Amino acid sequence: MLRLKIDINCDLGESFGAFKIGNDAKIMPHITSANIACGFHAGDPMTIAQTIALAKKHRVAVGAHPGLPDLIGFGRREMQLTPEEAENYTLYQVSAIQGFAKAAGLSLQHVKPHGALYNMAAKDEKLSEAIVNAVKRLSKDLVVFALPKSALAKTAAKAKLRVAHEFFADRAYNPDGSLVSRRQKGAVIHDPHKVVQRAITMVKEGTIQAFNGEILSLGTMHTICVHGDTPNAVKLAEALKKGLRKAGVKVEPVGNFI
Amino acid sequence: MLRLKIDINCDLGESFGAFKIGNDAKIMPHITSANIACGFHAGDPMTIAQTIALAKKHRVAVGAHPGLPDLIGFGRREMQLTPEEAENYTLYQVSAIQGFAKAAGLSLQHVKPHGALYNMAAKDEKLSEAIVNAVKRLSKDLVVFALPKSALAKTAAKAKLRVAHEFFADRAYNPDGSLVSRRQKGAVIHDPHKVVQRAITMVKEGTIQAFNGEILSLGTMHTICVHGDTPNAVKLAEALKKGLRKAGVKVEPVGNFI
Amino acid sequence: MLRLKIDINCDLGESFGAFKIGNDAKIMPHITSANIACGFHAGDPMTIAQTIALAKKHRVAVGAHPGLPDLIGFGRREMQLTPEEAENYTLYQVSAIQGFAKAAGLSLQHVKPHGALYNMAAKDEKLSEAIVNAVKRLSKDLVVFALPKSALAKTAAKAKLRVAHEFFADRAYNPDGSLVSRRQKGAVIHDPHKVVQRAITMVKEGTIQAFNGEILSLGTMHTICVHGDTPNAVKLAEALKKGLRKAGVKVEPVGNFI
Amino acid sequence: MLRLKIDINCDLGESFGAFKIGNDAKIMPHITSANIACGFHAGDPMTIAQTIALAKKHRVAVGAHPGLPDLIGFGRREMQLTPEEAENYTLYQVSAIQGFAKAAGLSLQHVKPHGALYNMAAKDEKLSEAIVNAVKRLSKDLVVFALPKSALAKTAAKAKLRVAHEFFADRAYNPDGSLVSRRQKGAVIHDPHKVVQRAITMVKEGTIQAFNGEILSLGTMHTICVHGDTPNAVKLAEALKKGLRKAGVKVEPVGNFI
Repeated sequence: MLRLKIDINCDLGESFGAFKIGNDAKIMPHITSANIACGFHAGDPMTIAQTIALAKKHRVAVGAHPGLPDLIGFGRREMQLTPEEAENYTLYQVSAIQGFAKAAGLSLQHVKPHGALYNMAAKDEKLSEAIVNAVKRLSKDLVVFALPKSALAKTAAKAKLRVAHEFFADRAYNPDGSLVSRRQKGAVIHDPHKVVQRAITMVKEGTIQAFNGEILSLGTMHTICVHGDTPNAVKLAEALKKGLRKAGVKVEPVGNFI
Repeated sequence: MLRLKIDINCDLGESFGAFKIGNDAKIMPHITSANIACGFHAGDPMTIAQTIALAKKHRVAVGAHPGLPDLIGFGRREMQLTPEEAENYTLYQVSAIQGFAKAAGLSLQHVKPHGALYNMAAKDEKLSEAIVNAVKRLSKDLVVFALPKSALAKTAAKAKLRVAHEFFADRAYNPDGSLVSRRQKGAVIHDPHKVVQRAITMVKEGTIQAFNGEILSLGTMHTICVHGDTPNAVKLAEALKKGLRKAGVKVEPVGNFI
Repeated sequence: MLRLKIDINCDLGESFGAFKIGNDAKIMPHITSANIACGFHAGDPMTIAQTIALAKKHRVAVGAHPGLPDLIGFGRREMQLTPEEAENYTLYQVSAIQGFAKAAGLSLQHVKPHGALYNMAAKDEKLSEAIVNAVKRLSKDLVVFALPKSALAKTAAKAKLRVAHEFFADRAYNPDGSLVSRRQKGAVIHDPHKVVQRAITMVKEGTIQAFNGEILSLGTMHTICVHGDTPNAVKLAEALKKGLRKAGVKVEPVGNFI
Repeated sequence: MLRLKIDINCDLGESFGAFKIGNDAKIMPHITSANIACGFHAGDPMTIAQTIALAKKHRVAVGAHPGLPDLIGFGRREMQLTPEEAENYTLYQVSAIQGFAKAAGLSLQHVKPHGALYNMAAKDEKLSEAIVNAVKRLSKDLVVFALPKSALAKTAAKAKLRVAHEFFADRAYNPDGSLVSRRQKGAVIHDPHKVVQRAITMVKEGTIQAFNGEILSLGTMHTICVHGDTPNAVKLAEALKKGLRKAGVKVEPVGNFI
């Protein structure tokens, strides 16, 4: 019998010095992949070291979460980058996390761009190629996290890197498979029960219901994103992991099964 | 017959975005090891990539040149760091350069702390241990550049890392083997001929004349530091390499012979 | 009858972009002077604007809270500064806050250095002179907040600036009038009742009991510092203001009565 | 007889700590208005102080040159800003320079946005309003430098601020009055003689010849921009000032005659 598998990922290590963000210690036990901020949009060497130690303790796979060089804007504001800048910014950030992982006796599992860089890479092929290039030059074993059908997913696949399709269980989808903008009402689904049901349906049946009721088939998903900064993030992550396991789904780091 | 060997190192890649420092393209042909700024006191991802490409072209060995997180002060102002901060700041910076080197098909040869961090590490054993720890966790093959008899040289040796003793051919020495402070007259030797003679004497006879005429024996030196930001840096580096070779000394990256 | 007066100050506006620190909205109603971070150790233009608007709403006097250029260390790590650097760093930061105050129709009341800069200025006369110089060049009406008997208090007085002596009601004092280091047990007094009593005694009798029981007379105090980042800060501030008023002390911005 | 008047402005104070940019000391004698970097895209407190002292010595009027918070990109990369962010970023930067000017016994004359912010403000009305709002809240006497017919020029005029129309004597113009992109050949005019002639024609006849030969009438110009970072900037500025004076034009700070 085929055992269904899924990964649960979360952005972590987003504190900066005395500025604390998130609830890393509480959320870590409930996820399987940690996307670690690299110092550009958030994160600093002390935070990276602590987050990797925490991930190691909970056997959570570690990934780099590179962002735009915009600490004051938390990497959420689009900015013009040349492909060469994007490639070298990614190289720098992923290398830094790779080094910390290595120093802790771990291997880096994946790379997931952050915020505006993620959104820009979803649409911009040249930018995606630059990011993918940086990842590939560091290791051909790294998994790239991307929205299914995005430019990033395509370019990473073309470069023969493993691509983990990412699913947002707590976000409403448009009929075309994109996410409903956070500025619209109903963009975020707050009911944990509903979120867990959506995740189970997605994993077992490969479908997701768009906000207009339409049933979408977005292909196989490999990892579910949990937002660490929502008020009920810890409970949601816990409910997701338990619910999926109860439904017979194996929850483990994506690098193990993709 | 034993062939004498020496390395010539220089701090490079110290530009930051549109802010250009140094004359990297002209000095690179005359040195054998490049200490590359890592983004804290200077350097940015684009500059790092360009400097490593330049080093590769000239077969110059690459090293990381980590500094204090003080861009506005160019890493030249002492600041209080805990050993844990020093270890993680070093890990971060060396990892970043290590990744760029790897992406360019090169191995990182060495680590040389910059400015105030170098000076602090020369005196402070706990700080040195933190730096050495970071280096060792990344690779046991990395060479640590240090002032002979400094705390950094001692702790690196104790950790069984290779230590390259650094000699400053264009700086006056105190009788105790320390450098004459730059604030004092005569601290920097500007005459290229004299600088080259000091270097040859140091390599062949193992001695250096202190500013008071005393002949010092500081042990074997492995690398000579050239300052890239002095007006005649290019000429000095060129004269050094030529003069040493003419005197029968082999000039090559320290990782090859230490 | 002479009415006793005191000011209550708190460090506010210490968020940075998405990185939120403190509980400004809740603490503002209970204080009379706000020390606003200026963007070096914390604070950003959006946060400054919001904090000044909040202060205006609650008729709290605004002051600048300049720090060291060390965002990652929250301005808490000593670093070497030349007096010229200290003067210009202070000019820059105080000017910025002064402009925001002006744009909101307010006058800047005071300047209080932050963290390591405050501690360095308490001991270092040259550094204090540099800070005082910057303040005086911007306005002779600005009040300087300082530890009584500190170098900063002395140099500000010598420059004929008004000096507000600062009292830490929730901190234990050494017999020499300095604060017990936070690294020692008992350095922070957590019992609100005790803190309020100490404040009342200080204001009415001019004395404070050192940790060894000795009664100290540190001269007239003008402002009591409340730490915004302690868990019970809001309650403490509220208790202080109420307690002092009940004891017949007028609580108002120091610029009004000094 | 009416005496024709024009101002010559240049971006200065764009060094950052040890990172030196431009040739401020040599160019200052040949200009009448200095646009001083404020610390976001370039500039630091020491550099600001030195640049203002230099301007004072040469009786050059000082202005603020606020930019995007992108030091690594020198403020040349567009980034998404909300109007509120633009207003507060401008407030912060202009306030800082205003304070330094005041501390030096000078009044701030003008504000000219830098790089990408200047270009964005030329097209975006909401962004322009935000910038104009910040300027006006600091002083109704400040002059705003803007491209004629730009959104910034219009919103500043609507807010009843004085607007200095800026002319780029060394740049080719499109027939619609916009500048030929630097990416196109012939965008920059290098021949000083030709540049001076264009400036004289513009001032005396109010016209400029577009790259296709068409004669444009862009209205009265008030200030000519000289780029401090071009190789022959000093000579060009000198030739401009001399040439204009020889042609009977008075060259003085725009605040005097607008």
